[in-house]
Amino acid sequence: MQVNFAERAHNHNWKLDPIVRSLLDTDFYKLLMLQFIWKNFPQVHVTSEVFNRTLSVKLAEHIPIDLLRQQMEFVRGLRFRKSELIWLAGNTFYGTRSIFEPGFLDWLEHGFKLSDYEIIALTGEQEGQLMLRFSGLWTEVTMWEIYALALVSEMRTRSALAVLSELELDVLYARAKTKLWDKIERLRTVPGVRLSEFGTRRRHSFLWQEYVVGALHTSLGSSFTGSSNTHLAYKHDLEAIGTNAHELPMALAALANSDEELYASQYRVLELWQKSYGGELLVMLPDTFGTTQFLEGAPEWVADWTGQRCDSKDPLIAGDEYIAWLTKHGRDARKKRFIASDGLDVEQILELHAYFNERIRFSAGWGTLLTNDFRGCHPRGDAALEPISLVCKLKSVEGRPAVKLSDNLRKATGPAEEIARYRKVFGSEARDGSAILV
Amino acid sequence: MQVNFAERAHNHNWKLDPIVRSLLDTDFYKLLMLQFIWKNFPQVHVTSEVFNRTLSVKLAEHIPIDLLRQQMEFVRGLRFRKSELIWLAGNTFYGTRSIFEPGFLDWLEHGFKLSDYEIIALTGEQEGQLMLRFSGLWTEVTMWEIYALALVSEMRTRSALAVLSELELDVLYARAKTKLWDKIERLRTVPGVRLSEFGTRRRHSFLWQEYVVGALHTSLGSSFTGSSNTHLAYKHDLEAIGTNAHELPMALAALANSDEELYASQYRVLELWQKSYGGELLVMLPDTFGTTQFLEGAPEWVADWTGQRCDSKDPLIAGDEYIAWLTKHGRDARKKRFIASDGLDVEQILELHAYFNERIRFSAGWGTLLTNDFRGCHPRGDAALEPISLVCKLKSVEGRPAVKLSDNLRKATGPAEEIARYRKVFGSEARDGSAILV
Repeated sequence: MQVNFAERAHNHNWKLDPIVRSLLDTDFYKLLMLQFIWKNFPQVHVTSEVFNRTLSVKLAEHIPIDLLRQQMEFVRGLRFRKSELIWLAGNTFYGTRSIFEPGFLDWLEHGFKLSDYEIIALTGEQEGQLMLRFSGLWTEVTMWEIYALALVSEMRTRSALAVLSELELDVLYARAKTKLWDKIERLRTVPGVRLSEFGTRRRHSFLWQEYVVGALHTSLGSSFTGSSNTHLAYKHDLEAIGTNAHELPMALAALANSDEELYASQYRVLELWQKSYGGELLVMLPDTFGTTQFLEGAPEWVADWTGQRCDSKDPLIAGDEYIAWLTKHGRDARKKRFIASDGLDVEQILELHAYFNERIRFSAGWGTLLTNDFRGCHPRGDAALEPISLVCKLKSVEGRPAVKLSDNLRKATGPAEEIARYRKVFGSEARDGSAILV
Repeated sequence: MQVNFAERAHNHNWKLDPIVRSLLDTDFYKLLMLQFIWKNFPQVHVTSEVFNRTLSVKLAEHIPIDLLRQQMEFVRGLRFRKSELIWLAGNTFYGTRSIFEPGFLDWLEHGFKLSDYEIIALTGEQEGQLMLRFSGLWTEVTMWEIYALALVSEMRTRSALAVLSELELDVLYARAKTKLWDKIERLRTVPGVRLSEFGTRRRHSFLWQEYVVGALHTSLGSSFTGSSNTHLAYKHDLEAIGTNAHELPMALAALANSDEELYASQYRVLELWQKSYGGELLVMLPDTFGTTQFLEGAPEWVADWTGQRCDSKDPLIAGDEYIAWLTKHGRDARKKRFIASDGLDVEQILELHAYFNERIRFSAGWGTLLTNDFRGCHPRGDAALEPISLVCKLKSVEGRPAVKLSDNLRKATGPAEEIARYRKVFGSEARDGSAILV
């Protein structure tokens, strides 16, 4: 065997192994939302924070702040590449061409930048936790979400891998691949199942996510409908999947000047959204302030939307509720889409598929337990590679606090007095308090 | 990433990917027996045959004869390398230096060669099977055994791998590694267990065997006592493990000129062996014509031998029988060694260790189910990679048929009338008919 002298020397010369190497390495819905914000709220200022809901894992013990800063500076130095912008302009998304306007693409090339940030080592009860805070124009803050989550997630992975021997690393990945393939084999027994990959933000690593997506794409045929990761969609000719997130209704709610405006803001988001997007991109996320009240109070035209994504309610209940609501409004549920995306794994995907089959077009957005399921894989039995609940939340908009109630009491965010006010406005019926896994 | 032009072009230029690349890539006991034969029977002619006891697998469908011949010609072209001979001369085996005589090493360098061979496509009931036949001086035939078995075994592997995609190959090895590591984890819970690797002849492939041996060596500490593979021992500073095989008593039996000589020949082997070897190499293999009769008729000095290898009897029974026999002869069984080597897997190794612990020094010779356990690993659920029962048997010595009775009725080999004659001479008590797994 010949020695590759250049490669060997280069392997000793590495300064940084960047985690996020392309601005497209983000969820597709962030780009849709970015255009939405650029168009409708270009001057609004916001603050977002990344933190770890899994308090037992102390991030500061695993992630050196200096290294995190290096990774974040690398991302800030990235620009959209010419061929990426051409792809955004020329590709069809959900069958539609020119989803991104020329003015927006021009701004992506010449005007887009990422806001400044703080890395904060928390103290007191949160001792050992790290928090990232982003403040600035909403257009400069919003894209940090996925980059920052993916950076923190993969830096934690690297820290856990650093103590393992070559054999242990090999065993670790063998087990994770075995586990993945067992899941794929289960899914292959049900040809009609539909799922896409939603796991960028809490992935084990970029390369593992790419491996997982490649394995699903190769093995599942039409059951695998695509990836939320825009870079992977671009690189591997996949469908880029996603629509919108809680960030939008939360911001519009924060900007409301009265309780009436606050209540109306949840539909105002949809009104604005459908000015820019249509068809499969009209998938609403009704749980921000409670799904039941959202549906009850929705104007008639909301029933024309293509589907619903369920992110914090038991999808069996939420799906039935949505079907009943559609029927009440004279719409054929079998033509609508219902997407579940909250902590799914293969068993639940199959259960939901069987439950909703023929009643509504169900598809699963499979996230953390697809791209970061190393449970039971650690060669020393350690928990250092098990997924944690990393989240990024909008904290304030133009200085006003941002609030989410959600369908799960434990997922409510915002100051207590604001949560109370929101509960008065939106009601607080029919919320459960399920434990949050990821 | 730079392209390695030379490597890429070379990968298209390969003519042959040799399976056996060193004459040391054989069981250590073959070298011990080769010296024994070279010393005591340099002019004896024998015939050996390699065949497949697993009739459901038709070798000819998987192994092109031309390619097999190319591999065998490659082995025939090999010579002992200078550094290999220096290692054989200078290394200590079982703590003893100079096990190989200078004259023998000189002959290995200048006089050793492999006999001619035939590759026979069988017909009739055996349609689809391949047989390899080796005829010539015993010193030229004997070494073919392991080379030929390893070639056939790995060529079958390659044929099964050839239809798999890159992802499927990756899944296959991930599963096999997961399985191996699960076995290692079980063994690690019992620090006192002792085992060595005996799986050259039926290995999945050389590289897999090397991986497995590396994993055991790294993970099991002193529980892993070494490998029977001399090349791996040489390459990785392991103990080379092994003593002798049925080939010796079978040949001496065939050479016997009377029933009395036939009966005595089973002890004559030991007499000759102990002229060349001592200590840990004095491990007898008493099952060739039945263990019980062997022990009953053994001269007193046989009880001085260091241990016994059990290859065809239930080791729980054979071990108890050996301990009782040692006790009867006034020997302390706790100082003796008892080795089981027949179709073991981790459960049985742990069971035997627990059973014999403190009563005799038990160790396991772990073969096929260590180096070729791909059961349940095939990504398409196919059986093409499950181990088969490939064997090499001495067929005749100086034109006389060679016979083995063994402790398992199904493992008897030789012409029926000769088996009958041997059974008259040796008796046929206490043999079972367990199914042969590998």
